[in-house]
Amino acid sequence: MHRTKVTVVEEALDANNTIAAANRADFDRAGVTVLNFMSAPGAGKTTLLERTVNELPGLRVGVLEGDVQGSMDADRLASLHIPVTQLNTDPSFGGECHLDANMVRSAMSSLPLDEVDLLVVENVGNLVCPAEFKIGEDARAMVCSVTEGEDKPLKYPLMFRTCDVVVVNKIDLLPHLEFDLDRLLYNIDQVHPDVDTIVLSARTGEGVGAWREWLSRVATRQGAAV
Amino acid sequence: MHRTKVTVVEEALDANNTIAAANRADFDRAGVTVLNFMSAPGAGKTTLLERTVNELPGLRVGVLEGDVQGSMDADRLASLHIPVTQLNTDPSFGGECHLDANMVRSAMSSLPLDEVDLLVVENVGNLVCPAEFKIGEDARAMVCSVTEGEDKPLKYPLMFRTCDVVVVNKIDLLPHLEFDLDRLLYNIDQVHPDVDTIVLSARTGEGVGAWREWLSRVATRQGAAV
Repeated sequence: MHRTKVTVVEEALDANNTIAAANRADFDRAGVTVLNFMSAPGAGKTTLLERTVNELPGLRVGVLEGDVQGSMDADRLASLHIPVTQLNTDPSFGGECHLDANMVRSAMSSLPLDEVDLLVVENVGNLVCPAEFKIGEDARAMVCSVTEGEDKPLKYPLMFRTCDVVVVNKIDLLPHLEFDLDRLLYNIDQVHPDVDTIVLSARTGEGVGAWREWLSRVATRQGAAV
Repeated sequence: MHRTKVTVVEEALDANNTIAAANRADFDRAGVTVLNFMSAPGAGKTTLLERTVNELPGLRVGVLEGDVQGSMDADRLASLHIPVTQLNTDPSFGGECHLDANMVRSAMSSLPLDEVDLLVVENVGNLVCPAEFKIGEDARAMVCSVTEGEDKPLKYPLMFRTCDVVVVNKIDLLPHLEFDLDRLLYNIDQVHPDVDTIVLSARTGEGVGAWREWLSRVATRQGAAV
């Protein structure tokens, strides 16, 4: 049984790559930089976006919001008056645990690509499968909360390894945790040497400036309007 | 493409149910109660087990530890001198994001079933797919940390709906969070009315007695030695 299963997954990944390339071509034609934004559930992706999307000079940000069910995060972001598109992954059984290229493609006609320079795709909260499926992104960012423990890079290495930046969030809670920040940064470096890391608190705003600069840099590098 | 994908999943779930029933029969013959123990990454499953496994009078506990990679949690638990078996899900690409019945079956011959009354299967940290795959368990428990926000039951309903108990962990952090515990409990009740809930801090020990009682009750109800 196991061999069969692996074969199906490889075929699915191959098809996914084909569709991701088509997405990528469409985004390039529209001049839109796409960020695949990932984390475990509750790490603070949406709160960090709330702190960011209206404070990137010259960059118009849109969000594609991926969730198993509901539109709570999309509602939060839409209140900031930016274009938000909701994508739910629950057409069958418990719902998909990740976005793939075809799901993003199915949302393509709903995306106001001529109104945005940077499209942030907020993936389903999960540290495993979202890292396995390209969606046509230019860059990948992940958020890792200090409440999750120092061991997560070692337990979920593909996620940390395929990201262009690791954002360490909720540092306002450090005084109340038994948590060794240096150990987390060491573990990140073990699985992805020299990856960019940004340490911040989306709640207090500490360190968020570096995240805004990273976003602006990525969008500029990809040629979006600045 | 989407239809094809759904079909594959349904076939996989059907095969999974068949193997889960076989696992269940083996566990029943051995007189072992099996708990499928789930959460998002870093919610505190292992810390809670560390607080529990040696303090259940008359119950011998063993752990089957599911991780994408590594054996850090198994090492922590083995130091408590209980039988621990490690199951890694990374034979291919980024690793499986959940345990399924066949993975548990592949570990069956390594499990010291005659030495345990309660086998806790610590699933991969993920709020989506682990809920979709039966492994042959008698009961399901999940841990939800207050650092993850109040909205998780609404975003990941299947996980909350298929559990026999929801453990709300890390309440020692409540004074430092903008978090409404009543709202979380209300949301849990919305997706799974009248499910057992236990509010605790695995770190300080507050409320952990109720969790020990729940485990003892489940093991007794299933006929394990008490």
